[in-house]
Amino acid sequence: MVAAPGGQGDNFAAAVRLRGFRRSVPAAIVKRGAGVPPGQHMTAEEFRRHGRDVVDWIADYLERVDDLPVLAQVEPGEVRAQLPVHPPEDAEPFDEILADVDRVIVPGLTHWQSPSFFAYFPANTSGPSILGELLSAGLGVQGMLWATSPACTELETLVLDWMIELLALPDRFRSDGAGGGVLQDSASSATLCALLAARERVTGGSGDLPAAQLVVYATAEAHSSVEKAARIAGLGSAAVHLIPVDDNHAMRPEALDAALAEDVGAGRTPCLVVATVGTTGSNAVDPVAAIAEITARHGAWLHVDAAMSGIAALCEELRWLHDGLDRADSYCVNPHKWMLTNFDCDCFYVADREPLVRALSVLPEYLRNVASDSGAVLDYRDWQVPLGRRFRALKLWFVIRHYGGSGLRRHVRDHVALAQELADWVRADRDWELAAPAPLNLVCLRHRDGDGVTQQVLERLNASGAAYLTHTRLQGRYVLRVAIGGATTRREHVQRLWHLLRDTADAVSAESDR
Amino acid sequence: MVAAPGGQGDNFAAAVRLRGFRRSVPAAIVKRGAGVPPGQHMTAEEFRRHGRDVVDWIADYLERVDDLPVLAQVEPGEVRAQLPVHPPEDAEPFDEILADVDRVIVPGLTHWQSPSFFAYFPANTSGPSILGELLSAGLGVQGMLWATSPACTELETLVLDWMIELLALPDRFRSDGAGGGVLQDSASSATLCALLAARERVTGGSGDLPAAQLVVYATAEAHSSVEKAARIAGLGSAAVHLIPVDDNHAMRPEALDAALAEDVGAGRTPCLVVATVGTTGSNAVDPVAAIAEITARHGAWLHVDAAMSGIAALCEELRWLHDGLDRADSYCVNPHKWMLTNFDCDCFYVADREPLVRALSVLPEYLRNVASDSGAVLDYRDWQVPLGRRFRALKLWFVIRHYGGSGLRRHVRDHVALAQELADWVRADRDWELAAPAPLNLVCLRHRDGDGVTQQVLERLNASGAAYLTHTRLQGRYVLRVAIGGATTRREHVQRLWHLLRDTADAVSAESDR
Repeated sequence: MVAAPGGQGDNFAAAVRLRGFRRSVPAAIVKRGAGVPPGQHMTAEEFRRHGRDVVDWIADYLERVDDLPVLAQVEPGEVRAQLPVHPPEDAEPFDEILADVDRVIVPGLTHWQSPSFFAYFPANTSGPSILGELLSAGLGVQGMLWATSPACTELETLVLDWMIELLALPDRFRSDGAGGGVLQDSASSATLCALLAARERVTGGSGDLPAAQLVVYATAEAHSSVEKAARIAGLGSAAVHLIPVDDNHAMRPEALDAALAEDVGAGRTPCLVVATVGTTGSNAVDPVAAIAEITARHGAWLHVDAAMSGIAALCEELRWLHDGLDRADSYCVNPHKWMLTNFDCDCFYVADREPLVRALSVLPEYLRNVASDSGAVLDYRDWQVPLGRRFRALKLWFVIRHYGGSGLRRHVRDHVALAQELADWVRADRDWELAAPAPLNLVCLRHRDGDGVTQQVLERLNASGAAYLTHTRLQGRYVLRVAIGGATTRREHVQRLWHLLRDTADAVSAESDR
Repeated sequence: MVAAPGGQGDNFAAAVRLRGFRRSVPAAIVKRGAGVPPGQHMTAEEFRRHGRDVVDWIADYLERVDDLPVLAQVEPGEVRAQLPVHPPEDAEPFDEILADVDRVIVPGLTHWQSPSFFAYFPANTSGPSILGELLSAGLGVQGMLWATSPACTELETLVLDWMIELLALPDRFRSDGAGGGVLQDSASSATLCALLAARERVTGGSGDLPAAQLVVYATAEAHSSVEKAARIAGLGSAAVHLIPVDDNHAMRPEALDAALAEDVGAGRTPCLVVATVGTTGSNAVDPVAAIAEITARHGAWLHVDAAMSGIAALCEELRWLHDGLDRADSYCVNPHKWMLTNFDCDCFYVADREPLVRALSVLPEYLRNVASDSGAVLDYRDWQVPLGRRFRALKLWFVIRHYGGSGLRRHVRDHVALAQELADWVRADRDWELAAPAPLNLVCLRHRDGDGVTQQVLERLNASGAAYLTHTRLQGRYVLRVAIGGATTRREHVQRLWHLLRDTADAVSAESDR
């Protein structure tokens, strides 16, 4: 038994001696290095070699991804048709597997890491994040309980408190009070957890209140996960009352107030209000402060979904986004969208963890342990839907340390500046117009000749592979969304996109004139 | 724009030419290599170097993990106390971050990859799996829709069909019929999805049926996720009716039949029956065939949870486990437990995907696309709680190809043989006894001198760090669980554990005799 790092080895050896254990098997044959691993495990040397190959492969990929068509140029079934129908009976060389990644997988990918990927939302990643995920996979530990790997829980709590400082979030979300943060896989899961905690609080966990009388409030621009959560939780889609928006697609607080009053009058119970800071469609920012006051007055739970845009609060000049957040019951933001951390990594905070844990805690005998019973630790399994959880905090820790607060801010400022420049170009153009304000890094635009042209431009541009955009509808109009947040997206990519949009529109118009 | 692999570059260039795009920006400055990345991104060369360091670190870790105390030897707060309270303002060198992993993180881990880890459930991983996860992080693509990366969806469908062949699962779960498989993060999420699909089918999605009248059936030995799912879905804990077990801790079908009849008589609606193939506590196998017949008669949904043990069906001689599975509505099994694939990787199958998708599909405008509208593709976002999903199929594909069916089977057979040998030692011992049958790779045992001794042995053994076990209670008695499934667990580790158990018990008894 050799000494382990951090002096553990000595303590361990001492503990074994103290307890009077005798080793019935000589240490030499217990050590893995001395035994022959079962034939087909990858040996340590093979792992080093193939691992290096995969690392190099990724480095090469990220260098050449700008040369690949952004949107996959394949038909349904085309990828699968190139792969064997049946699983292999015998082992295959790793090099062949990696060659198939090049041959079959890469042509079937839509390249989210391309600097010309402007679709959906940014999903930027980075070297330190990728290596954090690698390390997490290599350690292979479970963080479902504090006891199942204390460092997994404690590092997570720490980096979530760090995020509070970095984003200047309210102290009530800190883990040293009644609240706390946890990593979820996605904002969808955070929304569901917020609803479950809200339901627990409003019903006292009694289950006596029929689900049909609980109401959830959001705008039609809120994320689809709000309706999905209402369905999952058994409230049903009809329990989601859509609050009208203003001209900027943001929630109208007076309409929320009226809806809440009407429901209370009708004997229904306001359960959850979801305010969105940066909607998916158009980056609209619901007025959280006004919403918080109204929500509190009716005793409902306020969840603020800043999944896509909350990262902007790294920068002091953009923290107006979070005005009023100090009265929210829960909040989420996704480093896996805009903070150089690969999916999945959603930071979910609650001001009071008690209703969340009460809603989700089930304690079978086989999970009982001294640390949990003591109440001195957090067991994150009780903060989420799944039981198991991997060591996701590592990658976020790596990212924050690799960039530092200053590096992270600069990166956000770059993207916002690029989006603002694009918005200026659109404003100055005679053929295109902005379809919504562009407060951050999302620009919504449409062609002045109408939805048909706008849609054709999108389809042609995406089919070409030169860039990738997605669309939405705002007030019934077909709108292109340009989400700027790729790790390697630079001015020239945005400039090229703008040229492509204009050229494609010209081509579409010329054809329709013929 | 250089040619991409697989001839894409040519097609792409042709597409650009055909569409008449002109590049407004010279290709040279579009290429990432030619620009200077924002200061603090890790450069490709740095990534290669640090990536190699992390790969080597993992190889070293897996070679030395047998020398580390299995259970973390830290007190609550000890890990966090060694880390800075505030996030860094400035970037830190990667080497320092990795050094902190050694200094702070490793001593705070419970080492699930230790060959002397026998607690909870196996969570074995392997070189190809770790590298598959690495590649997934490096690609950074989203698989929420087929269109967001077709290869991500199609490879997932393929490997899930492969798993059907490898485990000889019923063809009704294949994706080329009405059913299909999907990767979930965990069996907990699979159970929730099964409940949501069951609720959708039994209520016709109407929401008219009060949740309080829906009933879920399982034994007290079923996984805690059954109760958790019932709570999340709004049915409440009281909706879970616990069916009595036989002497082997398996469900008594006649008791299920009686419970269903009673509930129907009382106006309640049987919604979901969960049969467990290999319970967490004792590896009990519910009689699926008898349960399936009864469940079908009452129109309820049968979910078979084989999370921990279904992998045994790789081996023909162990396929009795799945007798009757051809009548189940859904099924799950976890390669991340016992098939050398790192967490998270749960295979979830449904015989009819329609109620599942109907329960979980919400389609906002910004996710609409031609492929989805055509109905020719699967969009896995509609098969799970979250919207986003990473490319998890890669690691499972890597594992299956690296080992082949034959390699995977041998590994399962080794673990089962080791567990059977341990069970024989226990049977032959005068101080210890088996607490349950040991059909596969889990051995439940207790000391004949009673719960006090058994519990003390567990606590001392775990505190020593020499091995790690967890406990459960069976019929009120305190029982040690020995789950054998580590990737590098060999006969000598099990033998050493057995010696440690006996020696520790002797020490405990000697002390109490004084």
